[in-house]
Formats: sequence, C-alpha cells, structure tokens
Amino acid sequence: MERADYQTWQVRFENLRSNKVFELIVVAIIIFSALVVGAKTYEETTRFTQIMDVLDWAVTVFFVVEIAIRMLAEKRYRDFFKSGWNIFDFVIVVASLIPVDGGQSVLLARLLRVFRVLRLVSIVPELRVLMNAFLKALPRMGYVALFMFIIFYIYGAVGSFIFRDINPFYWENITIAMLTLFRIATFESWTSIMYETMEVYPMSWLYYVSFIFLSAFIFLNMMIGIVLETMQKESAAQEVEDGKGEAADIHWMREQMAMMQQQIQDMHRQIVPAKRTPEGSVERLSTEQKDR
Amino acid sequence: MERADYQTWQVRFENLRSNKVFELIVVAIIIFSALVVGAKTYEETTRFTQIMDVLDWAVTVFFVVEIAIRMLAEKRYRDFFKSGWNIFDFVIVVASLIPVDGGQSVLLARLLRVFRVLRLVSIVPELRVLMNAFLKALPRMGYVALFMFIIFYIYGAVGSFIFRDINPFYWENITIAMLTLFRIATFESWTSIMYETMEVYPMSWLYYVSFIFLSAFIFLNMMIGIVLETMQKESAAQEVEDGKGEAADIHWMREQMAMMQQQIQDMHRQIVPAKRTPEGSVERLSTEQKDR
Amino acid sequence: MERADYQTWQVRFENLRSNKVFELIVVAIIIFSALVVGAKTYEETTRFTQIMDVLDWAVTVFFVVEIAIRMLAEKRYRDFFKSGWNIFDFVIVVASLIPVDGGQSVLLARLLRVFRVLRLVSIVPELRVLMNAFLKALPRMGYVALFMFIIFYIYGAVGSFIFRDINPFYWENITIAMLTLFRIATFESWTSIMYETMEVYPMSWLYYVSFIFLSAFIFLNMMIGIVLETMQKESAAQEVEDGKGEAADIHWMREQMAMMQQQIQDMHRQIVPAKRTPEGSVERLSTEQKDR
Amino acid sequence: MERADYQTWQVRFENLRSNKVFELIVVAIIIFSALVVGAKTYEETTRFTQIMDVLDWAVTVFFVVEIAIRMLAEKRYRDFFKSGWNIFDFVIVVASLIPVDGGQSVLLARLLRVFRVLRLVSIVPELRVLMNAFLKALPRMGYVALFMFIIFYIYGAVGSFIFRDINPFYWENITIAMLTLFRIATFESWTSIMYETMEVYPMSWLYYVSFIFLSAFIFLNMMIGIVLETMQKESAAQEVEDGKGEAADIHWMREQMAMMQQQIQDMHRQIVPAKRTPEGSVERLSTEQKDR
Repeated sequence: MERADYQTWQVRFENLRSNKVFELIVVAIIIFSALVVGAKTYEETTRFTQIMDVLDWAVTVFFVVEIAIRMLAEKRYRDFFKSGWNIFDFVIVVASLIPVDGGQSVLLARLLRVFRVLRLVSIVPELRVLMNAFLKALPRMGYVALFMFIIFYIYGAVGSFIFRDINPFYWENITIAMLTLFRIATFESWTSIMYETMEVYPMSWLYYVSFIFLSAFIFLNMMIGIVLETMQKESAAQEVEDGKGEAADIHWMREQMAMMQQQIQDMHRQIVPAKRTPEGSVERLSTEQKDR
Repeated sequence: MERADYQTWQVRFENLRSNKVFELIVVAIIIFSALVVGAKTYEETTRFTQIMDVLDWAVTVFFVVEIAIRMLAEKRYRDFFKSGWNIFDFVIVVASLIPVDGGQSVLLARLLRVFRVLRLVSIVPELRVLMNAFLKALPRMGYVALFMFIIFYIYGAVGSFIFRDINPFYWENITIAMLTLFRIATFESWTSIMYETMEVYPMSWLYYVSFIFLSAFIFLNMMIGIVLETMQKESAAQEVEDGKGEAADIHWMREQMAMMQQQIQDMHRQIVPAKRTPEGSVERLSTEQKDR
Repeated sequence: MERADYQTWQVRFENLRSNKVFELIVVAIIIFSALVVGAKTYEETTRFTQIMDVLDWAVTVFFVVEIAIRMLAEKRYRDFFKSGWNIFDFVIVVASLIPVDGGQSVLLARLLRVFRVLRLVSIVPELRVLMNAFLKALPRMGYVALFMFIIFYIYGAVGSFIFRDINPFYWENITIAMLTLFRIATFESWTSIMYETMEVYPMSWLYYVSFIFLSAFIFLNMMIGIVLETMQKESAAQEVEDGKGEAADIHWMREQMAMMQQQIQDMHRQIVPAKRTPEGSVERLSTEQKDR
Repeated sequence: MERADYQTWQVRFENLRSNKVFELIVVAIIIFSALVVGAKTYEETTRFTQIMDVLDWAVTVFFVVEIAIRMLAEKRYRDFFKSGWNIFDFVIVVASLIPVDGGQSVLLARLLRVFRVLRLVSIVPELRVLMNAFLKALPRMGYVALFMFIIFYIYGAVGSFIFRDINPFYWENITIAMLTLFRIATFESWTSIMYETMEVYPMSWLYYVSFIFLSAFIFLNMMIGIVLETMQKESAAQEVEDGKGEAADIHWMREQMAMMQQQIQDMHRQIVPAKRTPEGSVERLSTEQKDR
C-alpha cells in the first residue's frame, strides 16, 4: 500500500470516528450487546443458544473492528494509548476476546463481556463528565473512608471483645464485627442485635446509639459536603470558561480594575501635584504611602 | 350571535378566568373531587353510590364548563394549546369524559378521574415553580440514572451468574437480580440475602458492601448535587431579575465598570500625553498595549 | 402603691429579667421539671408520689412567678403579648395550671406539663435562631408537602383500586393505602408488600419502584434544597449585617462604585469637551448615549 | 552530658521528627499494631499467643521511644504539651502502658490498645483537617441535638403515658420510650410498633407519622445544612489565603477600590471646582454630603 493511499484511508477513518451516526451505532450495539448478555441469564433461553452465540460473536467482531478503526485514525499508533478512556476501551475489548473452552472459564468469559456495557461511559460525553467529577472527588472521599474505617475498627474491636460470647454469629472476630457494624450503619434490623446484648449489658444501647450518630449522621454528611464542594468548584470553573456567570464577571472586573487603577494613578500624578495646594499634597503623600 | 356581542362575552370570560375567587372555587372543586374519588375506595360507601355518582357527574360537568370558559377567553382557539399547562389540563378533563359501560372499563374510568387532582399543580403557581424546577433537573438526572443503571446492570449480571443456584427467588435472571439489587440499595433486609450467599461464598460480602457503597453513597450524593445546583442557578437567576442580591450587584457593577473604564480612558488620553513627561509616556504606551 | 414606688419595682423586675444568672436558674428549673415529669413515667416511682407532687407544685409556682415578673417588667402589660415567644411561654404556663381532679384529666394535665420543656426553646438564643430558620422554611416546605401529597393520593387511589383484594390490611381504602405508601417511602419492609402483589400482577414492581423514585429520591432532595437555600440566605444576610464576608464586600463595592462613577462623570464633563479633539468628542457622545 | 552534645542530639531528633520516612514508618507501625489487636479477636489465634504478645510488646516500646524522640526534639519539654494533638498522642501511649495482671483488667488493657489506631488521625494531615472541620461544626450541632432531644423528650413522655399498657417492652418509661423513638427515627421496623398501638388507638398513626416528619426529615436536613455551611466557610477562607478564587478576587477588589476612590476624590477636588459651572458645584456638594 502506498503512502498517499494510506493517508486517504486514515482521513476516512478519522471522519468515521468523529461521525455522529457512527457513535450512535456504537451506542446501539453496546446496548444490544448488554441485552444479549442479559438474555443469557434466563434459563429458558438455552434453546436460542446458537442464535445468541452468533450474535455475541458478531458484537465481539464489531467491537474489534471499531477499536481498530479508532487506532488507525490516529497519526501514530501510540497516540491512541495516551487517552485514559482509549486504554479503558482497549482493555474491555481485549478482555472479551479471551477464548472460552467450557467449564469454569465460560462463566469468566461471560462476566468479562458484562463489562462491555462500561463502554457507554467512554462514549456518551455527559457520562464522562459525571465520571470525571466522581474521580476528582475520590481522593478526598478516600480520606473520609479512612476516618470511617478507624471508627469501624475501634467499635469492631470493642464489640468483638465484649459481645463475642453473647452471639458469635455477629461478634466472633473483628472482621465479622465490622460487617455487623456496617449492617447497623445501614439501619438494617439493628435493634434485634441491640436488644440481644441489652439483656446481658443493659447500658449497651449507648454503644449502638453513639455508633449510629458517629457513622451515619456525621460521616454521611461529610461525604455529601465533599461531593457538593467538588461539584460547585467544577461548575464555577465551567462558568469562567464560558465567560458567563458570577465567577466570570468577578474575574473580568478584577482585570479591568487593574487597568483602571494604572490609568487613574497616571492621571493623579499629572493633576494633583501641579496645583500644590497644601491639602492636596498631604493627601497625595498618604495615598503614596499606601502604595508602598 | 353578533361580533360585538361575542367580544363582550369574551371579555367577561377573560375576567372570570383571571378572577382569584374563580381560581379558589376551582381549587375547592378539585379537592372535593379528590375526596369523592377517595370515598369510592371505601367498601361501605357503596350504599351512597347514587349520591357519589351524581356528585362525580357534577364535578365532570363543572370541569368541562371551566375549560370551555378558559378556551373562549382566548383571542383564538389555537392559542389555548400553546401553553403546555393548558394541554395538560385538557388531556386530564377529556380523559375523565371517556364513557363507562361496566366491567373492566369502570376501573379504568375511575383511575383516569384520580389524575384530576394533578390539575392542582397547573393552578397553584407555587406548585408550577416546583414542577418547573423538577423538569429542569430531569435531563441531568437522566444521565445519573443511566450511570446508575450501568452499575445495576453489571452487578445484576454478575449476581445472576454466580448466585442463581443459591436462591432463584432473588437471582434467577438479570431482571429479578436487578430488582433484588434495588431492594439492597434501599437497605431493605439486605443482610438476610447476604448471609444466605455467604454460606456458599464466604467472601460474597464484598459484592454487597461494594454495591451499597457505589449505589447508595456516591450516586445519591450525585443526585443531591444536581438538584442543589439547579436550585441555586434558579434562585440566582431570580435575584438578577429582582435586582437584589449578590449576583445582581455583580452584574450591575460589571456594566458600571465598563462605562467608567471608557470615561477614564478618554480623560487619560487628554491629560497624560499633554504633559509629555518621559515617565508618563512610557506608562501610557504600556496601558495602550494592554488594550490591543 | 405610689407611682414612683411602682417604677422602682419595675426597674428591678426589668434588671432581673435580663439577668444572666436568672436565665440560667430558669433553664435549670425547666430541666429539673422535665426530669420530674420523666420520673413519673417509671412505675416504681409511685412511692415517691408525694415528693414528686410537691416538687411539681413548686415548679408550677416558680413558673407563674417568673412569667409575672417578666410581665411587670414591661412598660405596659399589653406589650408583653406583642412578642410571639412571650405568648408561647404564657400559653404553656397557663396550660400547666389547669386543675387536676382524678380520672382521665390527670393524664391530660401531665401531658400539658410535658410541654413545659418547650420553654427551653424560648430562653436559649441559639435554639430560637434554629426555630426561626425552621419557621422561615415552613411555607415553601408546605408546598413541597402538598406536591408530595398529590403523588401519595394518586398512588394511594390506584393502589387501593388494584390491590384491595390481594391484602385489605394494606390496601383496603385510600387512607390505609396512603399509610402503606408512607411506610414504603421509609423503605420499611416494602419488599414483602411488593412480592405479595407480584404473585397476582407480576409487573406491579413498576408501581413500587416508580413510587420510591418519585417520593424518596426527588422530593427528599427538594426538601434538602429548600432548607439549604433558606440557611444560605440567612447566613448571607447575617454577613451583610456583620460587615464581613463576600456579600458585604460586594454591597460595599456597589455603593462605592456609584459614588466613583458620579465623580468620574463630573471630571469627564470638565476635561474631555474642553479640548475638542474630533476623536474625543465622538467617544464622549457614545458614552452619553449609553447613559440615556 | 555537655550542653553542645545535648543540642546536637536535639537537632538530630528534630530532623528525625520531621522526616517523611520516619512518619511513614510510624503510620506502618500503627496499622501493624491495629492488625495485631484485630488478630487477637480471632479465637483460633490463641496458639500464636506468644508471638502476638512479643509483637504487641515491641509496638508498645516503639511508641514510647517515638513519643520520647518527639519530646526531646522540642526546645523545652513543656512546649510538647502546648499542642492538643501531642497531648492526644501522649494519653493514648501512656494508656497502653498500664500493666496487665490477668482477669478483667486484661480486657481493659486490650481496649486501651485499640485506641492506638486513633494516632493515625494525629499523623495524617488530611485526617487532621477533617477532624478540625468536625470539631468546628460540633457546637452548632450540639444545639441541633438539644432541639432534637426536646422533640424526643416530648414524644417519649407522651408515648410512655399513652402506650405503656399496650407494650411495656417499648413504652415502659420515658428512657425506654426514647430508645424506641430513636429506633423509629432510623425507620427500623417502626410499622410493627405502629400497627400494635393502632389496634387500641386507631388514630395513633398520627403520632408516628408526625414524629418521623419532625425528626427524620427536618432535623437531618438542619444537620446537613450546618455541616455544609461550616465546610463552605472553610473552603472560602482557604481560597482567600491561597489568593485564588472568587472570595480572594472580591477581597483584592475591595482594597483596590478604596485606593482608587481616594485618588479620584483628590482629582475631583482639583478639577471640578476650578471651572465653577453651577451644575458641577451642585453635584460636588451632593457627593461631599454623601461622604459625611
């Protein structure tokens, strides 16, 4: 294949990649693929097995071709892997190519195909925005999770030390106790666990009520606070970019004011000292002192 | 009917339509109509059937007359259908006119009459505002719902593949598995489902805990974030209209500053170059360069 | 009693009323009174009945004296009833004075004494602020509640029409159906109700899932939005009063800018037309046109 | 030990204290210590008792040495106790030094060791920030809790008066009634308690529904509002410090504007009165009046 010929094809691929219709087709195929995987979970569909397998094979081929087109559309192959979303797509498509040869691996192959629906996130722009907002909030949420883990750890250790002999099913060791505490944090039949321990230790309701206050109320609120903060910063940054809204107005005014201040100072130097009224000179000194 | 006569009537209808007392009567009739429908759900009220039917018929006639008045109050009939709320009212009234002839259709006719209470939303202005806020937040909430659906789909497929043989009632196929996951997302007796699968797969608590974290914590927060963002934008826009509040102040200042900047520049051109001090001329050049 | 004498006493009462120590004593008595009422709920405390009755009588007398002092501290008696909080206190104290003569009325008198703890709200200033914020948010919350009621009404009527024969305990008539829906909105064992109706109508999960989405997710979020909005407006208003914070800065700048604009325009009129450069005059016209 | 010698050691300790690697080692040891305590909750690990005891002893010694190093790194010993976090660390380490001599005290010693994981909060800076935000929100949250307590108290007293004879397990006295109400506030099987009392008092659902509305909806929202407010104030203060963002821009503009206003007024005094147009002098008077 000659170079000119190759470039023609590359331009064609590039056009195809950024084509709205092509994107819609990919979205449709992903949803269809999801339905095929979903249909396989129905026991009675086994008689359609052959049709399903053909459709599944067709979707897999389509995805390989689609990702190949997007790779060819790049100027250099390695540019393709510079985008995190492309790597994400590549891994999902390659994972669904793993050969199936009966037994346990059939289940694994099926599960890998389930993740193909995640490609919707990389294709629909609005979902990408949500995903980015989520990823940005992740590090701070990690610290809140660590804080929460410390609370769970302390209550878990205390709970397993004190309540172990009352009901080992809930309090046998620290891992099981922490799972029980997670259950209590979701308010799921926590009173039956409490009434059981209150028969032995009547004041043990303090353990549960204080834990629920600490975990459910305060930490959930903290999480909400972090997510909101991240979202507000994002939308404020968006407004600055768009040149609209409060934040943009303020930014514009700051720049404008710096220029005005410069010009007024120029004029002030020209006008005020020329007249030399004692009042004026005193005031000028005071404003100059402020400048220093 | 002559033209002048017709116009007199139209003005009368128009006055009636925008009459506060007339609006209150319509609100009262809607609430009364709701009570009539509600009363029909009581078994023992069947002996009042006849009275109920008469009242129901009266309400229906009143609604037809009321919507006819509002139609006649318009300059042209088709103007009536330009407002989404009018179409909304029209559909509800017409739907409750569908004739009832025993059997299954009685139930249908009754159900259609239930929706007459929705006319409260189109009449009370505060409810319209809430409805509009809700409709504005809908598109972005749709994307969050799509994101959530992808999470549900993946967990549903994985759950139905792995847990199907443990309890088909909860995990038989992907639809049932997703309904079970919705139940888990509402924290409703999720631990009994978990303890059941933990007997076969002791590590399956990871499946539930990770799902609850993903769905309940993060996505609920995202939704709250979106609703808040929409509400804040609305109230900020409201403030700009009212000429009050921070956003309005900033908007006013931006306009004012643009004018001041213009006038200062005029003066600067007149004053500073006239004196021709070397310092001044240099500074003037620098500010002019900024303008370009 | 002479007028001068009376005024001396009034000043003394006024000083007593605004005395911090007096306030603390009232708070202590209220909490003590709450403990006395609380103690009466213990069956075994009946042997202390006499002591309790004496203490209760003492608290009642103290409250009557305290409110009398505050009344006398006013210049005119009717001024006392101009404050909503004073009326609130008065009603609570008078209600606890209703004589008790055995039988059912003992319970009523006890209940009225329980409400004495509400006086804490009128005495502690921070609780008053919270209460005011709550009262301010009330009207808009009322409309959200009305919106929610419409949703409950429609789902309640539909539910009682369709599911009545399946389980009358949950769906017998519209009132019971709405109580069942409130239970579902709190996620309380809603799946057992759903699985019951799904045996007859397999698609009835749509009824429950759509209701939960509508009620729990959207409307709870709306309420949060309203409360937050009210709180932010309050804290912004507070900042303007304090002369601190962003809103106060912006308000100050707006006033300052109006003055500057005035002075610049004065100078502009003096300087720019005097020179009559064709460029300058044109620009001046343009800025004057903006002013109109 | 000579003074020069001592100072050399102090500098070495100081360097060690602020060493990133040293910090990471402390974090690792804390997590390891947590795992050792966690492992002790497993019944089957008793055969590893000896190894565990040695490791536990090693961690304790390490902590004593670590806190001694940080003490020696201070210029004066008492400076160490000026930081709240240092006192926090000191108390935790000293508490884990309490000698263990069998019986009940073994459990106590173990529990005290559990709290060593709290040292993570004092070491990881991000957790310190979260903790500070939490502590700042605490006083206002205390008032919300007091408000909530009043609601619980009133409903608790009313509930124990009316429902005591129906089910003493839930309503025997005010303390038990308030615990039952806390359970209802978490939506935990509240309907079974309601249906029980509704058999005697059919209207008692009003008690439960109104309580859930008051407690769960309104007060949870208030808490969210407070936490958000605290967080937003913090992030705004942070932005002012960083010299970035809206609040910083506004602060900068306010200062700049004060200076500009001063200079414009200087110029205004020089230019406008010199020409003496009647219009100008009137306007100047008006602006000067504003200044006063």
